[in-house]
Amino acid sequence: MEIVQEILKGNPSAMARAISLIEDRDDQAQEILKGIFPYSGKSVIIGITGAPGTGKSTLVDQVVHIFKQKKKKVGIIAVDPTSPFSGGAILGDRIRMMRHSSDKDVFIRSMATRGHLGGLSKASSEAITVLEAGGKDIVLVETVGVGQDEVEVVKLADLILVVLTPGTGDDIQAFKAGIMEIADVFVLNKADAPETEKAERQLKAMLDLGMDQVDVPPIVKTIATTGENVDFLVRRIESFAGNQKQKLKAARKKRLILWMLKDTIHEKVDQLIYQNIKDAELKSYVDQIYNRETDPYTIAESFIKKLKEA
Amino acid sequence: MEIVQEILKGNPSAMARAISLIEDRDDQAQEILKGIFPYSGKSVIIGITGAPGTGKSTLVDQVVHIFKQKKKKVGIIAVDPTSPFSGGAILGDRIRMMRHSSDKDVFIRSMATRGHLGGLSKASSEAITVLEAGGKDIVLVETVGVGQDEVEVVKLADLILVVLTPGTGDDIQAFKAGIMEIADVFVLNKADAPETEKAERQLKAMLDLGMDQVDVPPIVKTIATTGENVDFLVRRIESFAGNQKQKLKAARKKRLILWMLKDTIHEKVDQLIYQNIKDAELKSYVDQIYNRETDPYTIAESFIKKLKEA
Repeated sequence: MEIVQEILKGNPSAMARAISLIEDRDDQAQEILKGIFPYSGKSVIIGITGAPGTGKSTLVDQVVHIFKQKKKKVGIIAVDPTSPFSGGAILGDRIRMMRHSSDKDVFIRSMATRGHLGGLSKASSEAITVLEAGGKDIVLVETVGVGQDEVEVVKLADLILVVLTPGTGDDIQAFKAGIMEIADVFVLNKADAPETEKAERQLKAMLDLGMDQVDVPPIVKTIATTGENVDFLVRRIESFAGNQKQKLKAARKKRLILWMLKDTIHEKVDQLIYQNIKDAELKSYVDQIYNRETDPYTIAESFIKKLKEA
Repeated sequence: MEIVQEILKGNPSAMARAISLIEDRDDQAQEILKGIFPYSGKSVIIGITGAPGTGKSTLVDQVVHIFKQKKKKVGIIAVDPTSPFSGGAILGDRIRMMRHSSDKDVFIRSMATRGHLGGLSKASSEAITVLEAGGKDIVLVETVGVGQDEVEVVKLADLILVVLTPGTGDDIQAFKAGIMEIADVFVLNKADAPETEKAERQLKAMLDLGMDQVDVPPIVKTIATTGENVDFLVRRIESFAGNQKQKLKAARKKRLILWMLKDTIHEKVDQLIYQNIKDAELKSYVDQIYNRETDPYTIAESFIKKLKEA
C-alpha cells in the first residue's frame, strides 16, 4: 500500500490520514497497521497528564523545543475529552503548541474521546504506532485533564509525567483516579509561586505514605513559561529511558496484551457477531431481555454459538 | 439454587454473597444472575456523583431517610476507586452512612475498582440486578469521586444526580469528564454558604452555554447536614421517575446492549480463548509481537479462528 510507504518515509499527511482512518475504525486502518507494525516499537513514548491550568501544554512546548535542539524527531498526540464545556480551554492549550505546528519534524495530532473508553486507548495506541513507524524518536501523549479515561491513555506511555502546581490543595485532591500510582516523575510546575516549598513537602509526605520507599518517583520543579529547569527534566526523561530498558520491555509486552491484543479481539468479535445480525433481530433480542423473557447471558451464549458456526 | 430463592426473599446475606461472587467473577455468579434476572428491572436506580467533600454521603443518608419514611426499600451501592491515597476519605464517608447500616431494609455494599474499567461497570450492573431481584424499590449508586470510571458507573442509573458545592470554582473545573452532559438533576449542596447564589448563576450560565434550552437539568439547592430541601429533591426524583417512563425504557434497553450484552460476550470470548491457551504459548505470541515478527491483528485473527474451531 502506498500510504504505508509514505508513513515509513515520515510523510505527515500520510500519518494524519492513517490516524483519521483509525479514528473512524475504517477497514483500511487495520491493513495499514499490519503494514507499519513491523517498523514500530522504537520510539520513547512519554505520557503527560495533570489537571487543567497546570501548564501542561506550555511544558510540552518547552520539552519539544529541547528535544528539537537535540535533533530528535517529535510527535505529539493530544487526547481531548468530548465535553463541549471544556472546548475553549483545550483550544487555548492547542494554540500554545502552535510554535511547532509549522515544523515538519513535529507532528501534532489531537484525538477525541469517541464511544467506549477501550476505543480511545486502542485508537491512541494505534496512532502512536503510526508515529513510531513514521520515524519519530519521541512520542508525547498529552491529556487535557486527569479523568480515568485519560489515565488509561497515558498508561500507553513508557514514562509518565504528572504535572502539578503549588498553591492549590485541590490539585492533590484531584489525584485519586489512580494517577499517583502511575507517575514516574512528578513535575511541580509554576515553581516560582510562593507556595512551592510547601506543596513539595505535602507531595513528598503523600508519596511516602502511599508508596514503598524504593519506588517514590522524583519531583522535578519547573517554570514552563520561562523554560527554567526543563532541560533538567529532559535529562531525567533521557536517563530514565536509558536505565529502565528491561522494565520498559516488560511494560510494553503487557500493553501489547492488554490494549492491542485484547481490544483487537473484542473489536473483531463484535464485527463478526453484529455483521450477521440484522438490526431488527438485535432489537428483538433486547426487547426479550428487557421484558425478562430471557437474560443477557443466554443471549450472549447463543451469539457466541453463532459466531463459531459463521 | 437456594441462593436465588434467598435473594428473591430479600435476604441480605444472600445478596452480599452473590455480589462477592460477582466481584470475584466466580462461575456460580452467572448461574445466580440467570436465576434472578427475570425478577429484576422494577427498581428505580438513582446515580449520585460529585467531587469529594461535596457532602454526597450525607445527602444519600438524608435521601434514604425520606424514602424510608415513605416505606420504600432502599439498596445502596457505593463505588470506590482503589487508590490507597483516598482510603481515609472514603472510610469517613462510609461511616456517615452507618445510620442505616443496621437497618434490614437498607442494604449497603461497596464495590471497588478492580481490573479493567468495563469490569467495574459490568460488576456494578450485576450488583444492581441482585438488589432489584432482592425487592429494593430504590437502588442508589453512589460514587466516591468524579473520574471517568465513576461516570461509567453512574450511567447505569435511571436518574443521575450531580452534587456540587458553592464557593469552589474548581468544582466546576472538575466536571469535564463528561459529567455535565449526563446530569438529570444538579444538587447544589451546602446551600447555606454565602457564595451559593453566585455558584448557581455560574452553573446556569455554563448549562445554557452547553445545552439545548429544552434539556437544561434543574438545579436543586440543599443543606444535607440539616436535611433542608432534601424532601423537595426526593419529590423531584419521584416525579422524574414517574414522568419519564418511555425515556427510561429506551435508556434501559441501551444499557442492556452496552453493558450486559456486549461485556458479557467479551468476557465469555476471553474465557474461551484463554482457557485453551497455555501461559507459555501466550507469552510466545507476545514475544513475537514485541519482536515485530508478527502483529496483534494477525494473532487476534488466529485466536478467533481457534475460538471458532474449539
